Amino acid sequence: MALDRHSSQPLYAQLKNLILDRIDAQTYRPGQRIPSETVLCDELSLSRPTVRQAMAELVQEGVLVIVKGKGTFVAQEPERLAIDQVSGQLFSLLAARSLDPFRKLTVDRLAAEAALDQAFSRKHDTHAGYWSVAWQEERDGAPYVLCRSLIPVDFFPDLGPDLTQQKRLIDILANKYAYLPQKNTGRIFVRQPQLLEARALRLPRTTPVLVLTGTLTARSGPICELSTAVMRADAVMLNLGSGRS
Amino acid sequence: MALDRHSSQPLYAQLKNLILDRIDAQTYRPGQRIPSETVLCDELSLSRPTVRQAMAELVQEGVLVIVKGKGTFVAQEPERLAIDQVSGQLFSLLAARSLDPFRKLTVDRLAAEAALDQAFSRKHDTHAGYWSVAWQEERDGAPYVLCRSLIPVDFFPDLGPDLTQQKRLIDILANKYAYLPQKNTGRIFVRQPQLLEARALRLPRTTPVLVLTGTLTARSGPICELSTAVMRADAVMLNLGSGRS
Repeated sequence: MALDRHSSQPLYAQLKNLILDRIDAQTYRPGQRIPSETVLCDELSLSRPTVRQAMAELVQEGVLVIVKGKGTFVAQEPERLAIDQVSGQLFSLLAARSLDPFRKLTVDRLAAEAALDQAFSRKHDTHAGYWSVAWQEERDGAPYVLCRSLIPVDFFPDLGPDLTQQKRLIDILANKYAYLPQKNTGRIFVRQPQLLEARALRLPRTTPVLVLTGTLTARSGPICELSTAVMRADAVMLNLGSGRS
Repeated sequence: MALDRHSSQPLYAQLKNLILDRIDAQTYRPGQRIPSETVLCDELSLSRPTVRQAMAELVQEGVLVIVKGKGTFVAQEPERLAIDQVSGQLFSLLAARSLDPFRKLTVDRLAAEAALDQAFSRKHDTHAGYWSVAWQEERDGAPYVLCRSLIPVDFFPDLGPDLTQQKRLIDILANKYAYLPQKNTGRIFVRQPQLLEARALRLPRTTPVLVLTGTLTARSGPICELSTAVMRADAVMLNLGSGRS
């Protein structure tokens, strides 16, 4: 494929596609060094800024990786963290076994408001509001998922103080049988991260995240927790449990 | 936030982040028109090419949308196609009820080879190879998922001709009880599309796709089908069935 100097597509964008084509065709293989700026400039009769912009964007997009002093390499397929038993309660607080893997846990209390009540299928009236609990889970010291959980204060009046005092989850949930999740549904989708999400996950703003939202229903009937987990899409692989048809 | 003319980050990239910040902060809301190029040039003392490049990339990334003759708008959250009963057999041929929603169906026959035999946990020996069946499913005439299914020829010797002759699925699978899927496992992950995938899904090369792979095990024991579905990540929402904890 030659570059088209009369195209409305800028040359750097054409070069990006050319490099991607060569990666698809395995001309450049994962982990292999690609030709230097100088070589690409000569081969394709391009100016250095054009080549530099194409390379820079492919690095930002995670297609290429710069190894200092060694050159620019095709990124390896990342080794993904396999997450098993994917369900709506995967990143739930109330269904968790322990708070040990939860990092940077914070608790806020939100006043009752119409939008939240609607999400919980609750009549909008005077009640004690919702606990908003946020945490992240990490792998090798780097966060791969940001979790946020909403739980009615009525069901767990002491949740905020209990978490702040670092009680053990088993003690926090003791005797709360009626308000623990019995059923759940989940939704998985991909979207752009918000600014704070991108920062916390150490991602460029335009790199999409994989989101899992869960609706957990208490044994006594009502929704007891809404959970949202925002994952680095490049770092995880979700395993669906074995099902029978 | 002001732009930093001494930063190593190009001005157009800083402007992109500024626009994204304003969308996060709801200064620019979904569906709302953003200020024109001229207004942004004046407000931020930027040159027109800088503003144009930032806008063009945000349009390409789906953050902004140009409405001809009306201006540039913040994209609405897309209405996603809800896909229910997500499992490893969601985009399976053998577990399908009908071929009616399958568009552009093609069949190839692949020779037995070590990598495929390994994927099927089969001893590598002389056997009849694999059917490779590809199709896409569409919504409003636009493809949202590309499916590819591998099935041992031994189990379904007539599958290729049967599909080519457009037999009904119920007739193709009749009397094949032992070779139909009984159990399945699935994996969900996000990756960059290959060139042909991006073209078929009408996506820019650098827009990630959502992939669901399935391993289907026959009633008689062996793997009867490996399925791969490559979805437009911006167009779908996967619903996990309700589970009990």
